[in-house]
Amino acid sequence: RINGTRLWNALMELAQIGATEKGGVKRLALTDLDRQGRDLVVQWAKAEGLGVTVDKIGNVFMRRVGTNPSLPPVVTGSHIDTQPTGGKFDGNYGVLAGLEVVRTLNERGIRTEAPIEVAFWTNEEGSRFVPVMMGSGVFCGAFSLETAYAARDVDGKSVGEELQRIGYQGEQTPGDHPIGAYFEAHIEQGPVLEDANKVIGVVPAVMGLSWYDCTVTGMEAHAGPTPMHLRRDALQVATTIMRETVAIANRYPPYGRGTVGMVQVFPNSRNVIPGHVKFSIDLRNVSDELLNTMHGEIEAFVERTRRETGLGIDLQRVSYYPPCPFHPDCVGAVRAATERLGYSTMDVVSGAGHDAIYVARLAPAGMIFVPCKDGISHNEIEDAQPGHLEAGCNVLLHAMLERAGI
Amino acid sequence: RINGTRLWNALMELAQIGATEKGGVKRLALTDLDRQGRDLVVQWAKAEGLGVTVDKIGNVFMRRVGTNPSLPPVVTGSHIDTQPTGGKFDGNYGVLAGLEVVRTLNERGIRTEAPIEVAFWTNEEGSRFVPVMMGSGVFCGAFSLETAYAARDVDGKSVGEELQRIGYQGEQTPGDHPIGAYFEAHIEQGPVLEDANKVIGVVPAVMGLSWYDCTVTGMEAHAGPTPMHLRRDALQVATTIMRETVAIANRYPPYGRGTVGMVQVFPNSRNVIPGHVKFSIDLRNVSDELLNTMHGEIEAFVERTRRETGLGIDLQRVSYYPPCPFHPDCVGAVRAATERLGYSTMDVVSGAGHDAIYVARLAPAGMIFVPCKDGISHNEIEDAQPGHLEAGCNVLLHAMLERAGI
Ligand SMILES: NC(=O)NCCC(=O)O
Ligand SMILES: NC(=O)NCCC(=O)O
Repeated sequence: RINGTRLWNALMELAQIGATEKGGVKRLALTDLDRQGRDLVVQWAKAEGLGVTVDKIGNVFMRRVGTNPSLPPVVTGSHIDTQPTGGKFDGNYGVLAGLEVVRTLNERGIRTEAPIEVAFWTNEEGSRFVPVMMGSGVFCGAFSLETAYAARDVDGKSVGEELQRIGYQGEQTPGDHPIGAYFEAHIEQGPVLEDANKVIGVVPAVMGLSWYDCTVTGMEAHAGPTPMHLRRDALQVATTIMRETVAIANRYPPYGRGTVGMVQVFPNSRNVIPGHVKFSIDLRNVSDELLNTMHGEIEAFVERTRRETGLGIDLQRVSYYPPCPFHPDCVGAVRAATERLGYSTMDVVSGAGHDAIYVARLAPAGMIFVPCKDGISHNEIEDAQPGHLEAGCNVLLHAMLERAGI
Repeated sequence: RINGTRLWNALMELAQIGATEKGGVKRLALTDLDRQGRDLVVQWAKAEGLGVTVDKIGNVFMRRVGTNPSLPPVVTGSHIDTQPTGGKFDGNYGVLAGLEVVRTLNERGIRTEAPIEVAFWTNEEGSRFVPVMMGSGVFCGAFSLETAYAARDVDGKSVGEELQRIGYQGEQTPGDHPIGAYFEAHIEQGPVLEDANKVIGVVPAVMGLSWYDCTVTGMEAHAGPTPMHLRRDALQVATTIMRETVAIANRYPPYGRGTVGMVQVFPNSRNVIPGHVKFSIDLRNVSDELLNTMHGEIEAFVERTRRETGLGIDLQRVSYYPPCPFHPDCVGAVRAATERLGYSTMDVVSGAGHDAIYVARLAPAGMIFVPCKDGISHNEIEDAQPGHLEAGCNVLLHAMLERAGI
């Protein structure tokens, strides 16, 4: 069993770097604060005798040797960058749970066959630099190192420059690094475990997602003198698509998701009928077939609305991630560990993307979820219970030991 | 008959002050450009022998004496301030049509019994300083001179300071100025005349309006991990109210109007379910009873939606103008002049507020509408046909002569 208090203290200490007034953390990728956070974690790793390597995109791997040098490492990890109004647990928990596993093994003098590694991946959040999950994306070859280096923040600073500046542009070629199995412990970022009063979520898969930009073009006109039947009100037409987005998701329970999160209205004046409305659509499902069906339904609805209203409607898919089922061996290891330890549990499909979906392209992978308060994350009030964090870390310990061998 | 070419040339000359690249005009109230516009119109008035007085809120009155000094003047006017992306005709047409009436009377040596006056009112648009229709509002006592002076633009400059700076803070007490009858010629700012292929709109009344701010409060949460049935999506609830706004207007044809023009979504992020949505509602009708019914229906719908969804919904009425029927004598004078001159015509209820609704509180008032291209105003592409502007000015001439007596 791991030491829950030591884990909690490490989380609280790391959370001081970039701590916000409201109790959250602002530690954007590749800033000075990110460097301080990285330095602290690396310092802790070295104190535990781990060997630290850094790859060219700044992913950090902290290795505890195994007894059989021919075996690839069993890796765990996550990220320590945060949202601008982020919390203490998102990502950070997965990294420090890995460190706590190592501390426990060292304390007990337990040797594993395969090496044990704790990783943290660069710029998972994507708040400062797009694309999201950058470090793990480059690692698995989803996009190139050059693409990642060229990404710039709003001030025009590039990933390449900032990696060098903070001293985390390593030597290792990303992906040039065999992985035997990968586990990622994470707060759920949703309300399902809390709602069902369970402690451990076994994660069989991560949902796929389709992101769209939709623009409706009508004709701006004065709200008073323009009779209802002569209007081309872009917002009224946009609202039918916004509502259909949710209706589509509701037709494919339990894993259908439909969200309109971002809306811009032009000219956005109280007495002007909107001429243009631009908004985002986010569709998700755990089955690629159903996600494709949902994609077809939003396209068909837009097509029909275009025909019926005569307004211009542009729908562009801007992102697509297929669903990612995790490897039965890893899912099974998590499930077995949870049962052995006697925690209440249920399967929770991850609705959010994680570094694990990229790592899963190269190696067997799985995730462990613990509840977070009210399902809230990406928010300074993000919170989690010490007992739940401890439980998730115990499951991680047992699952890794099963895969690594003693 | 007036001189259509001279009228057009005056419009084009005034439109050069603050001309924009796209062919519009940006001449915000009480700026240096407004001063230049005012100076030009006053110079033209003086060249026609008119006596110019300015009141404390900067309204300018340009008087041609009558043969009977005991009669109050027959006044026409409008405004020369524009929207930030305004056109050449909104307001400016009413002022220069008045000047053209005077030029025509001078040219023909026609003496009227009552004096003839051309007025321009300060800050009708309300783009730089709130409230709108400020000069005519102070003139009729709708709000005080002190309230108006205290209004500040985004840079913190006040109406009082700016009036002094540009030299248009006059001596006369606003409203201390009898008016026998008031006519205002204006582009329609809507598509009704153009749609019906008519030249002159006789304006029996201006619609009343109710403006609201509505805020829906749900719970922001991650778009992926939050199941549909556990969401409190503020945008989805807001869209039902947005759609009901239009449905209410459609239940009260032909003069019901319902518009949502302004929307703000928080946090406005692609993968976050909106926690707050704030939007405007604009309801209008020409009957105060129906406007009240519409007001009751939006309140009832919000109440029902609050009950059914459990989300917080705040609805505040932020402005209310009752409908303004114009005086039968003035409406009759416009109608008679139109018929005498043989222009195609129809009644057009004004959907937009105008200085005339404030002046109507003190004196008989009426308006003359001419078509504008595609019904578009408050836009740099605002356009109108010289022949229509000439026709409206001829109607103004005849209507004023009828009320002033020859
Ligand atoms: N974990 C997380 O918030 N990922 C961002 C991408 C997504 O919206 O799933
Ligand atoms: N004429 C005009 O645009 N007035 C502004 C107030 C309104 O929306 O009616």
